[in-house]
Amino acid sequence: MFSGQNWTRLIRFVAAETAQIHIGEPIDPELDVGLAFHKEQAIKAYEIFGSALDPAAQVTKNVLTVKQLLPPLSREQIGVVRCLGLNYADHAAEANMAKPQFPILFYKPPTALIGPEAPITIPRVTQPASKHLPDYEVELTIVIGKAAKDVSEADALDYVLAYTGANDMSFRYHQLAVSQWGFSKSFDNCTPIGPCLVAATAIPDPQKLPLKCTVNGKVQQDGNTADQIFSVRQTIAFLSQGTTLLPGSVIMTGTPKGVGFVKKPPLYLTNGDDVTVWVDGGIGTLVNPVVEEGASAAVKAKL
Amino acid sequence: MFSGQNWTRLIRFVAAETAQIHIGEPIDPELDVGLAFHKEQAIKAYEIFGSALDPAAQVTKNVLTVKQLLPPLSREQIGVVRCLGLNYADHAAEANMAKPQFPILFYKPPTALIGPEAPITIPRVTQPASKHLPDYEVELTIVIGKAAKDVSEADALDYVLAYTGANDMSFRYHQLAVSQWGFSKSFDNCTPIGPCLVAATAIPDPQKLPLKCTVNGKVQQDGNTADQIFSVRQTIAFLSQGTTLLPGSVIMTGTPKGVGFVKKPPLYLTNGDDVTVWVDGGIGTLVNPVVEEGASAAVKAKL
Repeated sequence: MFSGQNWTRLIRFVAAETAQIHIGEPIDPELDVGLAFHKEQAIKAYEIFGSALDPAAQVTKNVLTVKQLLPPLSREQIGVVRCLGLNYADHAAEANMAKPQFPILFYKPPTALIGPEAPITIPRVTQPASKHLPDYEVELTIVIGKAAKDVSEADALDYVLAYTGANDMSFRYHQLAVSQWGFSKSFDNCTPIGPCLVAATAIPDPQKLPLKCTVNGKVQQDGNTADQIFSVRQTIAFLSQGTTLLPGSVIMTGTPKGVGFVKKPPLYLTNGDDVTVWVDGGIGTLVNPVVEEGASAAVKAKL
Repeated sequence: MFSGQNWTRLIRFVAAETAQIHIGEPIDPELDVGLAFHKEQAIKAYEIFGSALDPAAQVTKNVLTVKQLLPPLSREQIGVVRCLGLNYADHAAEANMAKPQFPILFYKPPTALIGPEAPITIPRVTQPASKHLPDYEVELTIVIGKAAKDVSEADALDYVLAYTGANDMSFRYHQLAVSQWGFSKSFDNCTPIGPCLVAATAIPDPQKLPLKCTVNGKVQQDGNTADQIFSVRQTIAFLSQGTTLLPGSVIMTGTPKGVGFVKKPPLYLTNGDDVTVWVDGGIGTLVNPVVEEGASAAVKAKL
């Protein structure tokens, strides 16, 4: 799709050999690198020369060992995060909200983003959890590869560099009672993204991807992108109207049913919980512990 | 306020002498540089060495001539734009909306920003104007100078590097009928910002600033920041809860009454209109022509 691009899966990591940040292609094409990293299994990758956003970046034969797995793109590469609200029919139904007629867009600043294993930080302003309802949302995430403006649905997938996963952590009290979504979903270090970028060529149909979320090992969300109200094609076409989506822009495409705040009783995340989000297609699992700001807590998920 | 900072007003411009981008302090401390530039008057500035975001940036004796006036900060320096909705009591009243209990936050991507004299581009998706109601909003704009997180109202002004002006161009059909504010206020090249940064030390009380907007020479908004529902102090304290406002972040603080969509009949902006927004305190006037994308039009305001 991007001429010259020859990686299928891309991870960003600190290498044991160099103590520097690199990007690479996991040698084992089947490995869930997020789970493997959580289990402290050795992960080997072929180094990629260049930038994840450079269509000419090339996989080399240099083998490196993952010491620390990072978000697949830096905050600087991403710039601005776009997210859709209420984009799954089953989620709109469980939240007792009408299906939107147009994509509902909100933004996050890049200061919200974290990588695999990093603690999801519940800020003081949203404590106690019983009032503020910190909640998980597994999401298929689009990475734009070339500047997209006024793109048609037919051409939209040509602008996708890759897909990844995210947990669009949401604080329901601020989201629903206090303010718009922009404030409630933008707290520092709350939105895990990753673990792999999977090249768009390897996911020709993004509307057939299972995705799941677990809390403390129990499955809470078990959906499929087939249930999206606005497809990836429609989302890119809509958002690019009059607006340039720059290379590196990410779009989190909404979450399926099973979120905590509509459960009876509500399920909210508290200090010490472990959350995983998984998206199929080789993207893999993000494992993150929940840590309340100010609390002393283990920063590694126990899962 | 920022130790070492010795500029009072800062502009960013291409210099006639070098054809390069510089920052500088206008030699005439009274000059409205935006109006002067529009009238093609010569503007001289003392070059500032360093970055606008560097507290140690120093005004030199080097004199440069402004060839092209630019936004006072680059898109890269700004990163993410935060904006408040419904933050003036008189505007909430004219829009027939309840005064918000908490600041209403939305974001713009930096691709929306333009500088003095640049055409405000009405994208195809919001044409014709009679349906989409492109509208002006003059706004006092805060520039954050050092990382601000969980800042108290008492300390909030210590984090302000400077103030500037903006026109938070709004497309009322998309804002009110189609989608959330994020989409409708984020189009490319729609949000003029500038012309000067005025150091926070020169504006000790930001709640006493007159601000105006004109369309084709006629005053449409004539307000004062005294009418803000949430003061600059309150806004920074609220937005910094659990969230780091990085240096260079800008916050557009809402608009007073007089916007076009509530007038009878509604006033909307069309191809060839001239819009100015002016904020007192030395910030000055932004003059921008309105150009409908795809139309052939003069790109310099006739005003």
